[in-house]
Amino acid sequence: MKVLLVFAHPEPRSLNGALRDIAIKELEAQGHEVRVSDLYAKGWKSEVDRADFPSLASETRFIPVAASKKAFETGELTEDVKIEIDKLLWADMLILQFPLWWFSMPAILKGWVERVYAYGFAYGVGEHSDNRWGDRYGEGTLAGKRAMLIVTAGGWEEHYSARGVNGPIDDLLFPINHGILYYPGYDVLPPFVAYRVDRLDEAGFERAAEHLRERMRTLESTLPIPYRQQNGGDYLIPSMQLRPELGESGASGFALHVNGAGEAGETSGQRPPQLQAAGAR
Amino acid sequence: MKVLLVFAHPEPRSLNGALRDIAIKELEAQGHEVRVSDLYAKGWKSEVDRADFPSLASETRFIPVAASKKAFETGELTEDVKIEIDKLLWADMLILQFPLWWFSMPAILKGWVERVYAYGFAYGVGEHSDNRWGDRYGEGTLAGKRAMLIVTAGGWEEHYSARGVNGPIDDLLFPINHGILYYPGYDVLPPFVAYRVDRLDEAGFERAAEHLRERMRTLESTLPIPYRQQNGGDYLIPSMQLRPELGESGASGFALHVNGAGEAGETSGQRPPQLQAAGAR
Repeated sequence: MKVLLVFAHPEPRSLNGALRDIAIKELEAQGHEVRVSDLYAKGWKSEVDRADFPSLASETRFIPVAASKKAFETGELTEDVKIEIDKLLWADMLILQFPLWWFSMPAILKGWVERVYAYGFAYGVGEHSDNRWGDRYGEGTLAGKRAMLIVTAGGWEEHYSARGVNGPIDDLLFPINHGILYYPGYDVLPPFVAYRVDRLDEAGFERAAEHLRERMRTLESTLPIPYRQQNGGDYLIPSMQLRPELGESGASGFALHVNGAGEAGETSGQRPPQLQAAGAR
Repeated sequence: MKVLLVFAHPEPRSLNGALRDIAIKELEAQGHEVRVSDLYAKGWKSEVDRADFPSLASETRFIPVAASKKAFETGELTEDVKIEIDKLLWADMLILQFPLWWFSMPAILKGWVERVYAYGFAYGVGEHSDNRWGDRYGEGTLAGKRAMLIVTAGGWEEHYSARGVNGPIDDLLFPINHGILYYPGYDVLPPFVAYRVDRLDEAGFERAAEHLRERMRTLESTLPIPYRQQNGGDYLIPSMQLRPELGESGASGFALHVNGAGEAGETSGQRPPQLQAAGAR
């Protein structure tokens, strides 16, 4: 496979840098072709602003969605963005690697998403009709490709467990896994998460490294998180609400959007095995 | 009250700009003192990197947490960060205003959080013992102050409802409300959210504006989201898991951390009235 790894840590001599090198080595040992977008190293511009759209007249009101649509259609996106889009189209597999800062991705990576995910490329794709609401959530430009997160967290695994004070890691990552990766079409693999990374001793590091190698060896066989396709019949259109007969009656929350989670007969609030495994390691 | 509004939209002539001006006007009419941090206007630097810590020797490995701790202790944070910290200490009320981009805050605002929330100021505060796990989640430097979000979303309100495909807005905002605002001590008011903002007609805009004015008039009387205090007895220490007898047995998810949500006798997955109201308007 062709693998793009987008890396968002400012220090190459960090645990993240070490894990990145381990991942790349294992991927190449498996015969995969790897490219890396090291956002800090390349001085990635994080902010969506007028400078992203040089053809926008200075007196024109800047509407980010409209400017993005026009620039994508006319080929006038900036070069740094075009290069990243070409990499996404090239890759069969996208890996986003980052430290969890304030329960989400670092600003520089968020800015990569905001600038590279152009209108017409990652959103605003497909037709709206009685049967579909655009190509998104399981369909879209990047459908047929896979994606996953490599995340490090300073906190304890228990703090991110089902009843942990930070909230469950799967829920904290849902806006990324579902909202950023599944949205433009990716099949999303369960994330790799390393905990307590500020206090890892050598044995702890080796355990994390071996788990990461195993994940890199099984990229093609790992089952994706079974999110529900938006246009697959599970959602009402145009309200885009899960059909009343699906999921547990009266239930709410992100778990509803995983197929098989909370269906009649299942225990309330439990996750499918794939997600439990992801959160538990 | 003293109110700090942190604004994160690149275009002053946007709906966000209009709503900001309405909020400020109403706050001042109520006798509040208002300061604004307009992140785009001031060219805020989004990325945490070595440049934030000029005293860090060039050969030293950059560990963001350690560098932040040292710079805060020795007064060596950069001037732009010190100014924002002083504003947070000055303000009785913090408002973060932003468009919802990819289900979270824009990169520039995330970068404001990452850089301004120094170790020893917003985290790494307080003692760890058998009875407490630092001063966080309801305690900390900013305890006794209030905070709230003003958010605009392009999607429909139904798409962000309890069963909507994007996930419930309260869950999408939990990593911010709970993880960024409640964490250093703020009492967090339910968010103001305007939907379908790309298609607002004049009547729709006036409805949103009036709702926003009402929220600005009631800042002092609105009940905060009743998150559970970390050291208030609800959590096991050090695993920081909600005590087994609290919340619905076997339940998971963000709602567990709101007092009264999912307690025995309540319907699974339902939110307390404050959160329903916030999501519904």
